[in-house]
Amino acid sequence: MTIEASKSGARAARIRLGMVGGGQGAFIGAVHRMAARLDDHYDLVAGALSSTPEKSLASGRELGLDPARCYGSFEAMAEAEAARADGIEAVSIVTPNHLHYPAAKAFLERGIHVICDKPLTANLEDAQRLKAVADGAKALFILTHNYTGYPMVRHARELVRSGALGEVRLVQMEYPQDWLAEPVEETGHKQAVWRTDPAQSGVGGSTGDIGTHAYNLGSFISGLELDELAADVHTFVAGRRLDDNAHVMLRFKGGAKGLLWCSQVAVGHENGLKVRVYGTKAGLEWTQADPNYLWVTKLGEPKQLVTRGGAGANAAAARVTRIPNGHPEGYLEAFATIYSEAAAAINAAKSGTPLDPAVTFPTVDDGVKGVAFVTACIESSRQNGAWVKL
Amino acid sequence: MTIEASKSGARAARIRLGMVGGGQGAFIGAVHRMAARLDDHYDLVAGALSSTPEKSLASGRELGLDPARCYGSFEAMAEAEAARADGIEAVSIVTPNHLHYPAAKAFLERGIHVICDKPLTANLEDAQRLKAVADGAKALFILTHNYTGYPMVRHARELVRSGALGEVRLVQMEYPQDWLAEPVEETGHKQAVWRTDPAQSGVGGSTGDIGTHAYNLGSFISGLELDELAADVHTFVAGRRLDDNAHVMLRFKGGAKGLLWCSQVAVGHENGLKVRVYGTKAGLEWTQADPNYLWVTKLGEPKQLVTRGGAGANAAAARVTRIPNGHPEGYLEAFATIYSEAAAAINAAKSGTPLDPAVTFPTVDDGVKGVAFVTACIESSRQNGAWVKL
Amino acid sequence: MTIEASKSGARAARIRLGMVGGGQGAFIGAVHRMAARLDDHYDLVAGALSSTPEKSLASGRELGLDPARCYGSFEAMAEAEAARADGIEAVSIVTPNHLHYPAAKAFLERGIHVICDKPLTANLEDAQRLKAVADGAKALFILTHNYTGYPMVRHARELVRSGALGEVRLVQMEYPQDWLAEPVEETGHKQAVWRTDPAQSGVGGSTGDIGTHAYNLGSFISGLELDELAADVHTFVAGRRLDDNAHVMLRFKGGAKGLLWCSQVAVGHENGLKVRVYGTKAGLEWTQADPNYLWVTKLGEPKQLVTRGGAGANAAAARVTRIPNGHPEGYLEAFATIYSEAAAAINAAKSGTPLDPAVTFPTVDDGVKGVAFVTACIESSRQNGAWVKL
Amino acid sequence: MTIEASKSGARAARIRLGMVGGGQGAFIGAVHRMAARLDDHYDLVAGALSSTPEKSLASGRELGLDPARCYGSFEAMAEAEAARADGIEAVSIVTPNHLHYPAAKAFLERGIHVICDKPLTANLEDAQRLKAVADGAKALFILTHNYTGYPMVRHARELVRSGALGEVRLVQMEYPQDWLAEPVEETGHKQAVWRTDPAQSGVGGSTGDIGTHAYNLGSFISGLELDELAADVHTFVAGRRLDDNAHVMLRFKGGAKGLLWCSQVAVGHENGLKVRVYGTKAGLEWTQADPNYLWVTKLGEPKQLVTRGGAGANAAAARVTRIPNGHPEGYLEAFATIYSEAAAAINAAKSGTPLDPAVTFPTVDDGVKGVAFVTACIESSRQNGAWVKL
Repeated sequence: MTIEASKSGARAARIRLGMVGGGQGAFIGAVHRMAARLDDHYDLVAGALSSTPEKSLASGRELGLDPARCYGSFEAMAEAEAARADGIEAVSIVTPNHLHYPAAKAFLERGIHVICDKPLTANLEDAQRLKAVADGAKALFILTHNYTGYPMVRHARELVRSGALGEVRLVQMEYPQDWLAEPVEETGHKQAVWRTDPAQSGVGGSTGDIGTHAYNLGSFISGLELDELAADVHTFVAGRRLDDNAHVMLRFKGGAKGLLWCSQVAVGHENGLKVRVYGTKAGLEWTQADPNYLWVTKLGEPKQLVTRGGAGANAAAARVTRIPNGHPEGYLEAFATIYSEAAAAINAAKSGTPLDPAVTFPTVDDGVKGVAFVTACIESSRQNGAWVKL
Repeated sequence: MTIEASKSGARAARIRLGMVGGGQGAFIGAVHRMAARLDDHYDLVAGALSSTPEKSLASGRELGLDPARCYGSFEAMAEAEAARADGIEAVSIVTPNHLHYPAAKAFLERGIHVICDKPLTANLEDAQRLKAVADGAKALFILTHNYTGYPMVRHARELVRSGALGEVRLVQMEYPQDWLAEPVEETGHKQAVWRTDPAQSGVGGSTGDIGTHAYNLGSFISGLELDELAADVHTFVAGRRLDDNAHVMLRFKGGAKGLLWCSQVAVGHENGLKVRVYGTKAGLEWTQADPNYLWVTKLGEPKQLVTRGGAGANAAAARVTRIPNGHPEGYLEAFATIYSEAAAAINAAKSGTPLDPAVTFPTVDDGVKGVAFVTACIESSRQNGAWVKL
Repeated sequence: MTIEASKSGARAARIRLGMVGGGQGAFIGAVHRMAARLDDHYDLVAGALSSTPEKSLASGRELGLDPARCYGSFEAMAEAEAARADGIEAVSIVTPNHLHYPAAKAFLERGIHVICDKPLTANLEDAQRLKAVADGAKALFILTHNYTGYPMVRHARELVRSGALGEVRLVQMEYPQDWLAEPVEETGHKQAVWRTDPAQSGVGGSTGDIGTHAYNLGSFISGLELDELAADVHTFVAGRRLDDNAHVMLRFKGGAKGLLWCSQVAVGHENGLKVRVYGTKAGLEWTQADPNYLWVTKLGEPKQLVTRGGAGANAAAARVTRIPNGHPEGYLEAFATIYSEAAAAINAAKSGTPLDPAVTFPTVDDGVKGVAFVTACIESSRQNGAWVKL
Repeated sequence: MTIEASKSGARAARIRLGMVGGGQGAFIGAVHRMAARLDDHYDLVAGALSSTPEKSLASGRELGLDPARCYGSFEAMAEAEAARADGIEAVSIVTPNHLHYPAAKAFLERGIHVICDKPLTANLEDAQRLKAVADGAKALFILTHNYTGYPMVRHARELVRSGALGEVRLVQMEYPQDWLAEPVEETGHKQAVWRTDPAQSGVGGSTGDIGTHAYNLGSFISGLELDELAADVHTFVAGRRLDDNAHVMLRFKGGAKGLLWCSQVAVGHENGLKVRVYGTKAGLEWTQADPNYLWVTKLGEPKQLVTRGGAGANAAAARVTRIPNGHPEGYLEAFATIYSEAAAAINAAKSGTPLDPAVTFPTVDDGVKGVAFVTACIESSRQNGAWVKL
């Protein structure tokens, strides 16, 4: 059990954590910090939070960091912290995508565990390089595909693994948003600026930012490997430099099929990630905005609404559940579960004890698959929707 | 106003109606009869209800038909009724698809109006022939794409036409069912037997039976013309002779895009027709199973739930609404609206008065488009998902 | 099986039907006519549709009635039709409440079956008189508490009867609306005028108009008899002459308890009838606006969403279901079921054959209970919420 | 802005926090700890976590507390911590209800701020005593009616205050659960044992445990003061010593009315807290299980679904929102908001700076009202539902 330190009996000391990115004006940095705090496995003690030493210091002060451990660059931080007896044991990388590879490399090579935001990198070449580094490192690499931390996602995955769905035929994923329906990047909107900039975001726009989440989640739940895809990737907003909508047809190894739709211009959707999986014996549906519910229908039976913490929730869900049914957990809790899974792995590595086999988190391999997915979408679309092998 | 005879002031006499198909054991025949009765514009007086004279007579007796007007074949019925002074003025054709063309031809050529179930025909050649006949006939041809009769579908279409959505970017259609998740056609299930038989159903399975509905509805609401499509059509159930699942990427004239998914093996879906349209200014979503609701979101405003008969319902919806808000109307009411729209057109034709321009119903052209859609899906899939022009 | 004539094998002739009330400008009359037509058991052949001979004739013409059978009063109609060889066999009474008793009496005493809108009468004295007449008559009396016709309501009732809920502890009923949130009766709104007029509506406003529906439905599903109630009945809109909101605490015989809330001023509710029943083993919830669904939860199991026509629907639901699951039925279909149940009873009476024991419809006794409920609410409220025995 | 320390510019030092109760096997203690951690305003440094020194020490070790600051009783903790230079500044009291008063008194009288779970006390006498202590103390008293921390609850309250609802007519509250549908207290279920024990829980069962929450929330949103109530309080489960269901009719000062239903035996409800408020101009509805949504309907307009972080969310909601719309926040976040509001007040008190007037949290006065509500329910029920003044 990785949730709340208190449940683990003899308590492990908190892991000393640093952060790269996440300074003033950022969004995902604060999310990572709340996620790291919730279950009390980490102490944030150092940061290279912003792109200049001055900003980094100012950001660090707001977080109560020791000014001496507020660094002007991730390189400086990696070097200095590796040299300290009480240096950080793990680092959260929450920068724009193009920095994931160099930053992760700097820490992994010094034996510091890396918890990195998605997508893995801005392009496939970097992804493969990062994989080589991670595979050769003694430190762990955890990718925060945070949606895999939701209890009902764990329940769904376990249902598929247990055979309750029979043979999976269809995996339908969608992730519509509407926050880029207009060219807000032209107004200086910080999130929009970097996420629509190929230099920072990489080859994919909506495909990289949210398509990878949907693809990862569909794969996580279904357990299937993608074989090939055919994509129609498009930019609707004039002047935008990356895609803001993609339609993708999928063929999985073993014969299952799927559709994936991601969009940043679908007016009316805030963050509409949904995964549906249909097998020969049952089907399931999960919607991120209402994450405490999972619809499960066995062929020939009424629909069931399985709830987090409720009577029908399985052990895989219960393991990552903090509070009773009817008391909703949300996005931060799921994110915190990734951090707690990471802590379990880090602590096992530190202590040399075996890791609970139930612990699971997205790895560098998942990250490479995600970038390969984006790359294949772009390539297929350039070939007018030809099938591209993964 | 076409709803309830009583609202039309001086009442038109009921239209004398015949029916081809719809005898004992059929499903859609009873639906057509209830739809014809609800608003009181028709009298069912004749039928070629089953495939043999004996069965046809037995079926007719159950409906209270004059035995003399229970025919053993549609040819006999067309000939005899055309010769009677009190012969039928219109006929409902509710047979399997392969008979739509010859049956419709027999009546249209005799000046008898035809109300025909969808899809138009079993193949594109028949569809074009039927169009030629219908275009040359004095009688009307109405295709029962009944979902266009729902008030909130009318509301949605009017929203698009009024410009409230801005420029349409995306049209997402899905129509999942699960009743063919297993090979029930092998058990003698009457509906399954003919709907999975190419000789009766035509070139498309799920694409023809439900894909055409979804495509028709998306076109009806969005007002867009399809330019080309790329499809991955598949049969999941071993031994089945027609497709039971299709994934289709769509490109509309003018630049909008879309996805269409239809399935008969998606466990957990009863009759899950859903259409979503996204424009530059607003988005909308309608689900057939909950037809009295329409979600509308204007960019930058909270979501609105517009209800049939409610404060936000527009004139196009109100025109085909029978009862107050909160008193749900359903599938039969929407179907009845098609019948009442047809009655308005037939009565206008009879009396030589101009037809209310608000009257709308699916025509033979819509039917040709539907069969062309199915044909293109099959063709694209044979070419491994190549784009096929409509 | 009472649904669609065609299913009953050898077809019974249509029942000759008259109507009292329901002329131009009325609401519920058209509902009764559609309900009577849907399953094809009736022919409407006579009417005293409006309050003057001229209006009655005009209304009748719009419906295609023989002018000779358009009467200026129910008394004239009862007398004349009783004298005809082809006179009406049944009559629908759809007037304001104060006329239910005299009209029903006129027809019952002549052996003409009565299908009467609710509430039974405007006051308890009339209700008891009408019961005496109905009990002594050879003709049947059917009260259109139409919500009892919904398939999932039948399912719910059968669940309770079968013991699936265990011992019932709680019955929670609510029926909020908002159409009288402002004094629309002062604007001449026809429905509002008579429904807020004690002379036409009787002692109860919201309690009589909708509270009786909720009470009837809770009783129908739970099978419980009310023992006593304590009510806080109120009129929020200044100048209104009848109540527009009521809070009622209920104690049933045997120890179950309940709450009933009805309101015509609850902004945001169109027609929000909902019934929830909780037993020792399971609970259920049904909402009229989404009538094809029934939530059922067995203690210690996940919630189930049972659907009309779906895998979990029981025989009591299937018996009154017309079309497949996922094709929504609505208010008119439920209303039509009451008419079809009535037709089954009338035909059994005509032919002297035993009535299918599955046939059920609200009777004069249910009507008396409803008026007694309203009377008790008013009485309790006058006594500042003292418990009043039923 | 009280959310995340980082947003407050110059960061206040974390508040040194102790905890009374919340040791091994407890539920709400872990909730308080997560809530205290999320926004990083507190350091938990001491505890009297369990009822014996040994258990308290074991529980403290699991949380990483200094063994020297793990106390065997709250009295010992209050005394020792008050004497330390680095002693706790605030304490969380998360014991069964009967200890709230003595524990709070011990800390308040030593100038240590108290964050106390609800209900305030086990009986009204203790509540009034505690109020006297709190009113006379220099330290703050915060009651964790945590549901007031949800952003959409704040939105709802602000809507009422702004006049958007017009004059409030109705406040409907319900809080059904089913976890006590059977006598689980007889199985040793720890939560059930103390919550059904009058000695630990006080005069109310369901009324105290959840009825107070519903009443507090309805009052918080509507801004109304209760004038009198009439209650039917009941125990359904044989042998249970406190109520497990209550029906309450409410009359507020100024003329509004309401119903409150709380139940622990309503099978199918996990934690079904819902509040609905209806005014002359608009109505609103909020459900705790889906807390990121608020339904708002203006009279004569379509329903709106306002979302946390979305386009329609007002400043009162935005102030306590951590993450973007579509990324659901839940129960722990709402609970954390109470802790962050408390931190803002404590820090303002420490620094002598004025408190942001937007900061709001439940006080001892709210607690007294809650206990008075429970007491009045029990009293009314003893008098067979007579109206009891608050």
